[in-house]
Amino acid sequence: MEVPPHATRRATVRRLPGGAQASDRVAVEEPLEIRVDGTAVAVTMRTPGHDEELALGFCLTEGLDPVAAHPTADLAANVVEVDAPGADLRAIQRSFYTSSSCGVCGKGALEAVAVDAPRVESDLAVPFAVLAALPTALTEAQAGFALTGGLHATGLFSPDGTLLCTREDVGRHNAMDKVVGWAFGAGLLPLSRSVLCVSGRLSFELVQKAAVAGCPVLVAVGAPSSLAVELADDRGLTLCGFVRDGSATVYTHPDRILA
Amino acid sequence: MEVPPHATRRATVRRLPGGAQASDRVAVEEPLEIRVDGTAVAVTMRTPGHDEELALGFCLTEGLDPVAAHPTADLAANVVEVDAPGADLRAIQRSFYTSSSCGVCGKGALEAVAVDAPRVESDLAVPFAVLAALPTALTEAQAGFALTGGLHATGLFSPDGTLLCTREDVGRHNAMDKVVGWAFGAGLLPLSRSVLCVSGRLSFELVQKAAVAGCPVLVAVGAPSSLAVELADDRGLTLCGFVRDGSATVYTHPDRILA
Repeated sequence: MEVPPHATRRATVRRLPGGAQASDRVAVEEPLEIRVDGTAVAVTMRTPGHDEELALGFCLTEGLDPVAAHPTADLAANVVEVDAPGADLRAIQRSFYTSSSCGVCGKGALEAVAVDAPRVESDLAVPFAVLAALPTALTEAQAGFALTGGLHATGLFSPDGTLLCTREDVGRHNAMDKVVGWAFGAGLLPLSRSVLCVSGRLSFELVQKAAVAGCPVLVAVGAPSSLAVELADDRGLTLCGFVRDGSATVYTHPDRILA
Repeated sequence: MEVPPHATRRATVRRLPGGAQASDRVAVEEPLEIRVDGTAVAVTMRTPGHDEELALGFCLTEGLDPVAAHPTADLAANVVEVDAPGADLRAIQRSFYTSSSCGVCGKGALEAVAVDAPRVESDLAVPFAVLAALPTALTEAQAGFALTGGLHATGLFSPDGTLLCTREDVGRHNAMDKVVGWAFGAGLLPLSRSVLCVSGRLSFELVQKAAVAGCPVLVAVGAPSSLAVELADDRGLTLCGFVRDGSATVYTHPDRILA
């Protein structure tokens, strides 16, 4: 399969250990607003490409009877219009990212979806050796994953690598919410002297949650999306992906990681 | 970390090759309704356990200023109430699984979230050798994953293992929607003579999309959730997880797989 032209973009990264600069491709994550006969019914964070198929498939699998889909006049607006005459939109609005005015149209992606949060200010510094060991420590604490193979996790660590809290969930954003909720109850917010580590990939939403919680360093076993990188850069977070087998890729604010 | 008591449950499965029956644990997936000062603001598909932390963390990272969280009187209702006096709920309702009546309370999980869809009727039969080869064929077609390491995929296959369509996305449900939308455009719905294969884990939502598209066999590299298994059983889909290295685990309707 060919990769759609706007599905990936370049990011300037640093490789650890060593700190060599490189140019990597990241998967693009952007909001798409789906409208049915003029009414916004959903916003989904998607990778651009095949947007009409996405909108049709979404409507079909939500029980609508669409006829066709087409982009709106302004291609940059990230909006697809679906024709589905006589559709009952109450059903599709059951459980989705909906609002009467989704607000994607005419805004930049970050502006459209980001929660207002202050920039993370922290002079935390973490040795790379500590950071590189976090995914293994997280996996070892994942009792539910060991049983099922089907749970994501978030771990909260002190700067010396001590695991403070780990939570598991089928939803990776839920695992992060549980950790932030635990930290709130323990009186530890903002997390300006802590590191968060997630078991999977890094979406925009996970970076947002870490930023709002005030955490300066976010580490993942998997890859970040384009919007995750942009938000981390904008909010002052150090974002590390592919932390495995003794190496890592740093996407933003590498100064907090000590060689 | 200890596993919360309702975070996993047993499923009776079959191991392939061979067909031996076994009892596996699957991660539980159930809807949780989050209410703020009595108003339902979100429904999230989550793994039970630490629900108050989840609700607090969700509200905090959505920019609210919560004070405390507590379950409602009826524990079975999967509802958590958050106290956040004076909260502006317009912000939190920006982009979430919201409706004025989320409908989780007092219903079974499936009843609360499932789209109404007919049971999949298909006498399709697929040799195990064909099925076991699908994840590798999908990976080889994932051009975007090869570039970024950060994209999920869904592939649509004919019963002899021919790849008909593959789509990639940062969101795994989007990749499935794109394939279903492609099939719609190609006049191939319902998918009663096809097999769908996904690159990651199997959520309830992915099973629902396959069921509505009429696909009788759904295959994944990863693990299914409890609700994925329940929905597949209810709608007549054959669900296979952990399809890797020449083996697989079949959770529902194994008769469609030929030894």
